[in-house]
Amino acid sequence: MPDETLRTARARTVTIPLSGAPAETGEREIAVETGVEVSFGGVPFAVMMLTPADLEDFGVGFSLTEGIVERAEEVRRVAVTEEERGIGISIEVAPDRMHNLLARRRSMSGRTGCGVCGIEDLEALERARPVERGGAFAPVPIAAVARALAELPERQRLGRATGATHAAGFADRNGAILLVREDVGRHNALDKLVGAVLRNGLDPAGGFVVVTSRCSFEMVEKAASLGARLIVAISAPTSLAIERAGALGVALVAIARRDTVTVFHGAEALSYPEA
Amino acid sequence: MPDETLRTARARTVTIPLSGAPAETGEREIAVETGVEVSFGGVPFAVMMLTPADLEDFGVGFSLTEGIVERAEEVRRVAVTEEERGIGISIEVAPDRMHNLLARRRSMSGRTGCGVCGIEDLEALERARPVERGGAFAPVPIAAVARALAELPERQRLGRATGATHAAGFADRNGAILLVREDVGRHNALDKLVGAVLRNGLDPAGGFVVVTSRCSFEMVEKAASLGARLIVAISAPTSLAIERAGALGVALVAIARRDTVTVFHGAEALSYPEA
Repeated sequence: MPDETLRTARARTVTIPLSGAPAETGEREIAVETGVEVSFGGVPFAVMMLTPADLEDFGVGFSLTEGIVERAEEVRRVAVTEEERGIGISIEVAPDRMHNLLARRRSMSGRTGCGVCGIEDLEALERARPVERGGAFAPVPIAAVARALAELPERQRLGRATGATHAAGFADRNGAILLVREDVGRHNALDKLVGAVLRNGLDPAGGFVVVTSRCSFEMVEKAASLGARLIVAISAPTSLAIERAGALGVALVAIARRDTVTVFHGAEALSYPEA
Repeated sequence: MPDETLRTARARTVTIPLSGAPAETGEREIAVETGVEVSFGGVPFAVMMLTPADLEDFGVGFSLTEGIVERAEEVRRVAVTEEERGIGISIEVAPDRMHNLLARRRSMSGRTGCGVCGIEDLEALERARPVERGGAFAPVPIAAVARALAELPERQRLGRATGATHAAGFADRNGAILLVREDVGRHNALDKLVGAVLRNGLDPAGGFVVVTSRCSFEMVEKAASLGARLIVAISAPTSLAIERAGALGVALVAIARRDTVTVFHGAEALSYPEA
């Protein structure tokens, strides 16, 4: 629960040609977004809109990318329940993490912002810590990036059916896509992937993250929270995404076209013929 | 202030062909996202990431779509200031609206959520009121929708330069685009457009809204807050967007392709040849 079939629904449609030809009535598969109430240790934390699939992955990933825990093992249990108006995700974390969360909430009371947006004030924008530089990161061949970009669309089951979801994938160093998670929200898709990578025991530095969306700074922060060293975004990055990629030590490749990709930070994370 | 030139920045890039041909270093224009702190009557309300352009429009639109005011005239003043870490938008609203806002904040203290996400709990998901059914809404010819869709890309100055921004436009009944606003966030782009339509004294029911993004329920809610009767989204809608379109009386057209559009709710708001 929730049932896999909840991911999509069907809607009655009228498709109108722009040429002036007659319209046709029909039916289309659409992506479902559901209100999901996330709580930690029984304390409500945030309400967000998600595609109701892979919610256990989401619970683990969200705990990490929101900074509630620092390691996946500190998430003790994720329970998904059906509520009257939506879905509940009840997360139990290690006692000291819960203690920190309650202390943080007390100090936040009366201030703006919340866990949903992840921003309390302008100072709080920088959340993730730099990716561990402990192990060396061998450059990923550009051919592996090309392969991952070619494989990802085939794996977007929900995206192909509905056209309304983003995907985040994790590829190994050869570009083979190992995991894909989808959601109506690009942040949620990446949170689900973060949880899935960790729950499956994969080494975040042993491959790279590919996202179908634009790359705002939050996407870079989430990749860094996972411990990924390279993120490839199909669309363009923003100024702050590039800045955060530099600060966090995450290589940022974006604007994936049929024939090229563009590196905005950390070209040394790739191996490719130089001019 | 802020200066128009803040909308974009330049980044150094390495463009790598996927064919194995040599990489090229270069420079690209990128979209700027800046932390913006929104306050009402001096009380901090929310921090969000915006493209620093058309912030007065944003202030008015956000006040309306967040339900702080019900009419644009209740926004007395929007002042944009440069802070150390970002930009501040100080909004003054009518005294009774400020009173309501403070009361609402008091009742929210200790609860989850905030003004940024707009969701406090699952019950709070439905915010906007149905669009006034007072005046009749004459159907918009499908040719006008086709024209607006064709004209919008030409008007996306920021989007063409950076590839990282969404746009929201307002078209008249003939499909001529009257106003366009752009932002790294699709919600922000629409909030800016809402403010621009009202500040320019346009009749929201005298045309329609076109957005370049997917259509989630918030986009429908914002269109309804403006008083628009028809929203056209280039990409696909979600289940909740269709549900809210029905509840709020907003016609929802989406999946704009080169040759067709698909109506998900309110086909009677368009005139087109029926089968």
